[in-house]
Amino acid sequence: MNAHQPKSPVQTQQAKNVLYAQAGGVTAVINVSAAAVIETIQQNSEVFDKTYAAVNGIKGVLEEELIDLTDIRDETLAQLKYQPGAAFKACRFDLDPLEHNPEQYQRVLEVFKTYEIGYFLYNGGNGSMVTAQKVAEYCCQHGHPVTCVGVAKTIDNDLALTHCSPGFGSAAKYIATSFLNATLDIMSMHNTSTKFFALEAMGRNTGWLTIAAGLVKDVIPDVPIIILPAERPFNEKAFFDKVDQLIASKGYCVCAVSEGIVKENGEYITIAGVEHTHERDYVQLGGVASTLSHLVGKHLNSKTHYAIPDYCQRSASHMVSKIDWQLAYDAGKEAVKAAVRGEHGVLPIVKLTSSTPFSYEFETVELNAVADLEKHVPEEFLAEDGMDITEAALDYLRPLIQGEHSAPFKNGLPNIPPIQFTPVEKQLAPFAVIK
Amino acid sequence: MNAHQPKSPVQTQQAKNVLYAQAGGVTAVINVSAAAVIETIQQNSEVFDKTYAAVNGIKGVLEEELIDLTDIRDETLAQLKYQPGAAFKACRFDLDPLEHNPEQYQRVLEVFKTYEIGYFLYNGGNGSMVTAQKVAEYCCQHGHPVTCVGVAKTIDNDLALTHCSPGFGSAAKYIATSFLNATLDIMSMHNTSTKFFALEAMGRNTGWLTIAAGLVKDVIPDVPIIILPAERPFNEKAFFDKVDQLIASKGYCVCAVSEGIVKENGEYITIAGVEHTHERDYVQLGGVASTLSHLVGKHLNSKTHYAIPDYCQRSASHMVSKIDWQLAYDAGKEAVKAAVRGEHGVLPIVKLTSSTPFSYEFETVELNAVADLEKHVPEEFLAEDGMDITEAALDYLRPLIQGEHSAPFKNGLPNIPPIQFTPVEKQLAPFAVIK
Repeated sequence: MNAHQPKSPVQTQQAKNVLYAQAGGVTAVINVSAAAVIETIQQNSEVFDKTYAAVNGIKGVLEEELIDLTDIRDETLAQLKYQPGAAFKACRFDLDPLEHNPEQYQRVLEVFKTYEIGYFLYNGGNGSMVTAQKVAEYCCQHGHPVTCVGVAKTIDNDLALTHCSPGFGSAAKYIATSFLNATLDIMSMHNTSTKFFALEAMGRNTGWLTIAAGLVKDVIPDVPIIILPAERPFNEKAFFDKVDQLIASKGYCVCAVSEGIVKENGEYITIAGVEHTHERDYVQLGGVASTLSHLVGKHLNSKTHYAIPDYCQRSASHMVSKIDWQLAYDAGKEAVKAAVRGEHGVLPIVKLTSSTPFSYEFETVELNAVADLEKHVPEEFLAEDGMDITEAALDYLRPLIQGEHSAPFKNGLPNIPPIQFTPVEKQLAPFAVIK
Repeated sequence: MNAHQPKSPVQTQQAKNVLYAQAGGVTAVINVSAAAVIETIQQNSEVFDKTYAAVNGIKGVLEEELIDLTDIRDETLAQLKYQPGAAFKACRFDLDPLEHNPEQYQRVLEVFKTYEIGYFLYNGGNGSMVTAQKVAEYCCQHGHPVTCVGVAKTIDNDLALTHCSPGFGSAAKYIATSFLNATLDIMSMHNTSTKFFALEAMGRNTGWLTIAAGLVKDVIPDVPIIILPAERPFNEKAFFDKVDQLIASKGYCVCAVSEGIVKENGEYITIAGVEHTHERDYVQLGGVASTLSHLVGKHLNSKTHYAIPDYCQRSASHMVSKIDWQLAYDAGKEAVKAAVRGEHGVLPIVKLTSSTPFSYEFETVELNAVADLEKHVPEEFLAEDGMDITEAALDYLRPLIQGEHSAPFKNGLPNIPPIQFTPVEKQLAPFAVIK
């Protein structure tokens, strides 16, 4: 985890081209990192020549779908700083293992050589860092040294080693705000209507966004809340007992639940009769709040409700945390600075330098120190019964949602028209991505 | 629908007390109406003496759960103007028919007499206006004349006669903004991930909030969208055909669907195997987006996603439309002004005076002209295939989402702590609401 400075594989005095790409689930601030990457490249014109972005992440490299950003207009840069989604399109696509599909790696190398790419900046989560690492190794081993740096991003906050991940703070602000609003709704109507409400948060195997709902305590200290993070197995009996107890004392109960929560036997909680889409062994989650809500409705013989914000929580241009925005900007900037320093195969991560006031710096770690790892909500953030969070969790969460840096509104809606980019003309023969 | 001025039943020169209550599903701006009611009462002290609010609507009247607002603090009034939920708690509870339960009406009369209530202002939707009407008639017929005025409110926008309902514009802004953000998300990832996304909007039998998703066209004119309002039966074949066509041309498809959409045989679209809670013949909706999403996932053999914002769309203190805020304020103010004029058994409604620029005035209609009626999305707002909206719909929707008047943020979250009110000491014997 210590800062280090591996020897740069780029052994030239001459400026090289740089390729940036986005991968994995989007965040509300991923394009802020893109803007920071582009601006920092512009500030280092002695190191960098042309700037390209690949469309659809590494898939766009294979397909030679590239955008030339060298002369990007200032207005476009400004727009990137507010745009949700992935402006350069993000892929759920990883390279196959080298031994299974060497053609993919040869193609990446061919494209990198053709466009004289000396720097590769990959903006993604833990899965994407594996891809970045593989590309870097292959290119270096095959005579085309490429300085490869990751740009951290995930709403899931599950990247290892870093204090937090850019993208998480805004999603956490979205979840906490939504949960707070809904709690006031239920608080005001439970006497003759809904007594139980569940909100489902994303995060697959980690409960970071789920615990963010607990920030409601800062506004309603005695809120009758149940928090079910993915880290703890779901125990129906204990859950019902707590629902009963909270409703007996407060008249209602609000619950935040991780989409990926599992039963004690390791099975996902799903709705009987609904088939899940399987895709490359990827179980599609979503719907646990509905299941919980129906279970409680039967248990209480009373009306219950649930919300599933789904993608709305990761693309909320109107709910951007100012701190998160800054972290996303710094993640992009620090990645380019690492490249300038000649660091290779690294990821800039957030290191807390002070809790109060909140301050941080970036340091680099090796990509393979974070690739494919998953950071879970630690024990000390969870109450003994596994259904609430501690003051330590609130201390961790609070700084990350501070401040507002949302997209400006125009005519009643966020002013975020899709940004149009024209890809460069292809120079190579087509490549079949799917063999 | 013409403005009229029935003779006031209050035949006295002396100031009388006023009772305000909230009923039915909440909106983000219902308390704005409450603040307007209180402020306008304060401005007419020659007409009004004490101001009370009932807790839990008409149920609080039966239970003598009353709050004295006569000396409400300025800070509390200011807070009401941003507070989501129902500050005085709203009920899903109507009086029984008089012939079935005369005791309820006798009790209301007893409470009104005890607290010398001469004015009753009921803030609710079409169902609540029935209750207001029944109370008014009974009191007048039994020697205690009460001037009874409705205050319009519903996110569903289904109140008859009025141009629109206070509460709708903010919920519409929430739906349109959420849908816009999510569309940019899917647009940026569909190449290797989700190709179909459905968002479910509230509104039971009417599609007003569903068509609000169509406002995304103002930002993304060529958006591949399907809009399924409750007004049109769901035809699976036509729906799949349109999904296929949009995905073929744009690569993805986004869909807004009414929670209450039914099949051509009149049945709700539900998830097989999930039981719905029935309560007083009230079918609990919610989940159709999940069903649609799974249907499309099977049809396409591809990943799909869905969002169900549920209560979050009606309590979004951070997504208040300025126009809607003003409409809610005016609805409260105009109700009090109608009472001052001695109008009885009426509801102030919004009458459009100009489309461009958007301007309106209030006029009063008789409560029984709107009670229990339901205004549907008109034919001319829906495309011929029933799965899209027209320019006329956009013209109608646009003005209602203009401007932002959200709750201020404090420490990263909307500054909306629950407002604490102390009920007055009871003077009467308890009353069993449930026989």
